[in-house]
Amino acid sequence: MDLRSAGSSELPQSGAGNAGVRQLQVSLGDRSYPIRIGTNLLGDEALWSTLLPSVASRKIALVTNDRVGPLYAKTLEQALSNLGCQISTIVLPDGEQHKTLEGFGKVIDGLMQARMERKSTLIALGGGVVGDMAGFAASCYQRGMPFIQVPTTLLAQVDSSVGGKTAVNHPLGKNMVGAFYQPQAVVIDLNTLSTLADQELSAGMAEVIKYGCIMDEAFFQWLETHVDGLMSRDPELLAQAVYRCCELKAKVVAMDERESGARALLNFGHTFGHAIGSAMGYGQWLHGEAVGCGMRIASELSCQLGLIDISTKRRIERLIAAAGLPTQAPNWPAKAYLSAMAHDKKAESGEIRYVLLQAMGQAFVRPVDDQAVSQALEASQGPIELQD
Amino acid sequence: MDLRSAGSSELPQSGAGNAGVRQLQVSLGDRSYPIRIGTNLLGDEALWSTLLPSVASRKIALVTNDRVGPLYAKTLEQALSNLGCQISTIVLPDGEQHKTLEGFGKVIDGLMQARMERKSTLIALGGGVVGDMAGFAASCYQRGMPFIQVPTTLLAQVDSSVGGKTAVNHPLGKNMVGAFYQPQAVVIDLNTLSTLADQELSAGMAEVIKYGCIMDEAFFQWLETHVDGLMSRDPELLAQAVYRCCELKAKVVAMDERESGARALLNFGHTFGHAIGSAMGYGQWLHGEAVGCGMRIASELSCQLGLIDISTKRRIERLIAAAGLPTQAPNWPAKAYLSAMAHDKKAESGEIRYVLLQAMGQAFVRPVDDQAVSQALEASQGPIELQD
Repeated sequence: MDLRSAGSSELPQSGAGNAGVRQLQVSLGDRSYPIRIGTNLLGDEALWSTLLPSVASRKIALVTNDRVGPLYAKTLEQALSNLGCQISTIVLPDGEQHKTLEGFGKVIDGLMQARMERKSTLIALGGGVVGDMAGFAASCYQRGMPFIQVPTTLLAQVDSSVGGKTAVNHPLGKNMVGAFYQPQAVVIDLNTLSTLADQELSAGMAEVIKYGCIMDEAFFQWLETHVDGLMSRDPELLAQAVYRCCELKAKVVAMDERESGARALLNFGHTFGHAIGSAMGYGQWLHGEAVGCGMRIASELSCQLGLIDISTKRRIERLIAAAGLPTQAPNWPAKAYLSAMAHDKKAESGEIRYVLLQAMGQAFVRPVDDQAVSQALEASQGPIELQD
Repeated sequence: MDLRSAGSSELPQSGAGNAGVRQLQVSLGDRSYPIRIGTNLLGDEALWSTLLPSVASRKIALVTNDRVGPLYAKTLEQALSNLGCQISTIVLPDGEQHKTLEGFGKVIDGLMQARMERKSTLIALGGGVVGDMAGFAASCYQRGMPFIQVPTTLLAQVDSSVGGKTAVNHPLGKNMVGAFYQPQAVVIDLNTLSTLADQELSAGMAEVIKYGCIMDEAFFQWLETHVDGLMSRDPELLAQAVYRCCELKAKVVAMDERESGARALLNFGHTFGHAIGSAMGYGQWLHGEAVGCGMRIASELSCQLGLIDISTKRRIERLIAAAGLPTQAPNWPAKAYLSAMAHDKKAESGEIRYVLLQAMGQAFVRPVDDQAVSQALEASQGPIELQD
């Protein structure tokens, strides 16, 4: 499957400035919705009034967590309140360990207690955990209420908030209970990246790098040039990277909403990453960190299968390292990884299908025999080569 | 809204016999599916082999309860096993009080432990509680796995198994957490009605009568003629009634899958019924019993508003009584009902919209002032007139 054509438009120019709001559209027929990217959007009443057109939609449940809420909820609440919205705020504990059916039940309890109605709006303010869990609650509450994603981490901004995949984890597997449920809009306020921990910035960069690897060689090259600037949070570079990733994601989702084809390529590095996450217990590594390491393993595997050359593999390894991500796979027997992956939901009738690269910016999916996978896993437990 | 045209085809002829399988189709584009109605279908390998075409779909989770399972699971398991299916059976406790998020979580646990995959099939064998809860679990498991409804109560056969509404209850409201999620097929084995308690048969008749009231005067008249035969479980009469109800329901669902219009008319009697159910605590009355009584209140209200005449109201009251359903509303103050209904999810922005009749077989929706509702509630607390 070749996604290159989907990534053919040019990067926004550096000189464009970040004052203006960048706009994108996810095209899904009657489920289409806008993405707005810019600064100071949380308090932008004019923006919110366009996103909440009806009286019913102005009865709002704001779902956030106890880390993001104290930083950003007030600005958003004030803007909504000025528009005459009636707001009930539901605060969840921070952390992936709370992304469970129990946590989901607490969101539902909050919606019920606030007497939210079928046409009220849920706004998810936070990272991927808040977005996934609140989005799933919105999909189920009265069989579906409108919701808006307001992602506050780089990872959520470039990946999880766009495309309608919502879910919670089960003790036996990640994201096992959820729904495909599209938001009404995604509002990305880049200001929120200023308070992000370095580790979270790196985790988000894993998904950013992923887009370059699987569908956009020019973007990969741009990232190689600007990785240091991105890691030092240059606002204009971050704005460009977020815009580009959302543009690419929106195109993939429009092609394949329910992951029956092209969308599966977005799981590059994720099959290995999930194995690392589930074997270590969620919370040891951030999702993005596990994906970063998983991309190294997938690149190694692609190289060992003769699909990409060593220099391509090394470019990926170095960009992962430059983004502050772990590159060395945990030192477990290959069997432990294979067993964890057999549990992964991407395994269909026992066969694991891997996302591999056949060139920089070109990914495809196929099964691979366990022996080749084992070799790639073992090779990925060593250090990477920082010099050619 | 006039649904009469949707109910224009003739009732199946009495002479048609019940040996053959009756077939219907719910037309929803790529979510269309067949309904099969007949006897001895649970063990019909030829039928099941057409419904489970792929190898992946033959990995099956059979979800049932501890009352229906011992009676019917073995026949179905045997047929599936003969087709080479790999079956994991999940047995839930019987009863509406288990239709909760906790119960839903147990179905998910069972699916995970059985390592069900995204393309495995869930079969829901039981009444409305099993179908609603297992269907909701199917909608969420790995963001949606195929499922087949095998309803074993009259109520589930004529109403809840067709149309894709799945849900569980919340302590603060009925069916508050769920999904619109269509099954792959509905298989109605009329044999299962032989073991149904009389009270459950009556509860199912409430929904049967509902179709006559809201969209099919001829069917209502047919029911008046045959209610005694139906209550004594004449197989051919039951087959005809089930077929007709499914045909009507399928047409309404095809017109309005997500209940934005015509489908709301299927809630005739339900707004009052839910108020009775939630104020009494679920489990005191069966859902169908509460709906039966709710239809009396709705008819009384329609009559008091001058929409239908007294003789039409009395025909409805007498058919409800002849089906063994409660007709007298519980003796609470009207305020208690109004408060319970304000909690009902059909209330939008505080306004309750009632399904009313404007003639036998013709329903519509509109708000009504509290005073008129109170009068109808009070009048419905007395006995009905059995003679003109």
